[in-house]
Amino acid sequence: MKLSTLLSPAELPALAQRDLRATVCVVFDILRATSTFVTALQRGAQAIQPVCEIAEANEIYARQPDVLLAGERQGVKIRATRAGERDFDLGNSPREFTPEIVQGRTIVSTTTNGTRALQACRGAQLVLAGSFLNLAATACYLKKLSCAEILFVCAGTGEGVALEDVLAAGALAELLATSSAQLSDATVIAQEIYRREQSDLAAALGRSQNGRRLLSLPELADDVAFCAQRDCFDVVPVLNSQGRLVRSI
Amino acid sequence: MKLSTLLSPAELPALAQRDLRATVCVVFDILRATSTFVTALQRGAQAIQPVCEIAEANEIYARQPDVLLAGERQGVKIRATRAGERDFDLGNSPREFTPEIVQGRTIVSTTTNGTRALQACRGAQLVLAGSFLNLAATACYLKKLSCAEILFVCAGTGEGVALEDVLAAGALAELLATSSAQLSDATVIAQEIYRREQSDLAAALGRSQNGRRLLSLPELADDVAFCAQRDCFDVVPVLNSQGRLVRSI
Repeated sequence: MKLSTLLSPAELPALAQRDLRATVCVVFDILRATSTFVTALQRGAQAIQPVCEIAEANEIYARQPDVLLAGERQGVKIRATRAGERDFDLGNSPREFTPEIVQGRTIVSTTTNGTRALQACRGAQLVLAGSFLNLAATACYLKKLSCAEILFVCAGTGEGVALEDVLAAGALAELLATSSAQLSDATVIAQEIYRREQSDLAAALGRSQNGRRLLSLPELADDVAFCAQRDCFDVVPVLNSQGRLVRSI
Repeated sequence: MKLSTLLSPAELPALAQRDLRATVCVVFDILRATSTFVTALQRGAQAIQPVCEIAEANEIYARQPDVLLAGERQGVKIRATRAGERDFDLGNSPREFTPEIVQGRTIVSTTTNGTRALQACRGAQLVLAGSFLNLAATACYLKKLSCAEILFVCAGTGEGVALEDVLAAGALAELLATSSAQLSDATVIAQEIYRREQSDLAAALGRSQNGRRLLSLPELADDVAFCAQRDCFDVVPVLNSQGRLVRSI
């Protein structure tokens, strides 16, 4: 089995040229998209539909007014800016996604890097959304699958590498790497940096560029510690053929 | 001062959109292009002209028959395959570049990732070729410059991240990072992985994908230990306006 890693979102476009039919992709956007998706599904949401643009979310709401709209721009929950739009129901903090709010609902979530990464993996045998919150469950699920390659996809921020996504890739590699596994250099890098930081993940996330930004915002600061929690959830989100994340069976 | 890092060659095309006029780029292609360029200049070569294609090297030779041709494909020195071409004088092993052979000569070297990385940085205030061999000299040179940002460019292999290039970026970051320096997440990753491996760089290079390939080839195996040597040379190669690497003054 090969364990490969895309450290940078700049590596995503080349995925379109690769045959991914025997590859399982695990997408990490730790602060905060995939941590939020995992939380929402764990707390009873029926599905997450990730979209890139606010307009796309509003269009879906116009057709299906039973969905919840979620997302943020610059850390702030999205508000209507013109007629026909609507204030979003939720921001992008996993702590907002309580069972009372999300139970049985489909959530349309606007993210940029997380959505782009999930879409870039569409040709894969299977696409999962990963986080520290459900890492052991994800590893357990992957061990039962037969696949030639597991590709850890670090969604990053803008065009740049995000430390927290690389840490999560390394943490999952650590759980999956057997003595016969072939690790790419990028996977070795992720694994070694995780080993350096594993004793205090919350501190490591807090030193990342995204972590520092969140810690500077009083309402969102607690998201860093939340997303650094390990193995508190057992849900494994899988991208279905409609481009929605649902609980694996 | 900002210390930024491109971990993957997939990040190179986006450099064309960036204003690099206040940025100094340091390109690392440790196994082996930039290690070889540094060695050649240290041992008296006048200039290195990096080119991507064998045909380009042959065309330059046709106009300037006093140049030496250097390069390899699949680890083997390049041989003429048709009329008008010529067997190359040198491969890509730094150990071949002895003073007797290179003194006073211009060397046309065909590389892929190293050349692509150097060319992608053309808009920068200054472009250096770095290696472990001249790391302290490079750090000393950079400390004397005034620049808003230093960008470590890991040339990688094919489309992938190369561990040895990331280690070198981390090693230089370690020498340059002051308490007030702003490190990107990618630079933090490079620096931390270097700290984990600094006690035995040769072993770390030997575990990389390129290192393992070289170690499997009897004639080239010693290149790994050669390129892992720290601070044995004091030359600092700078890209001049003709796209040639020359010694900094």
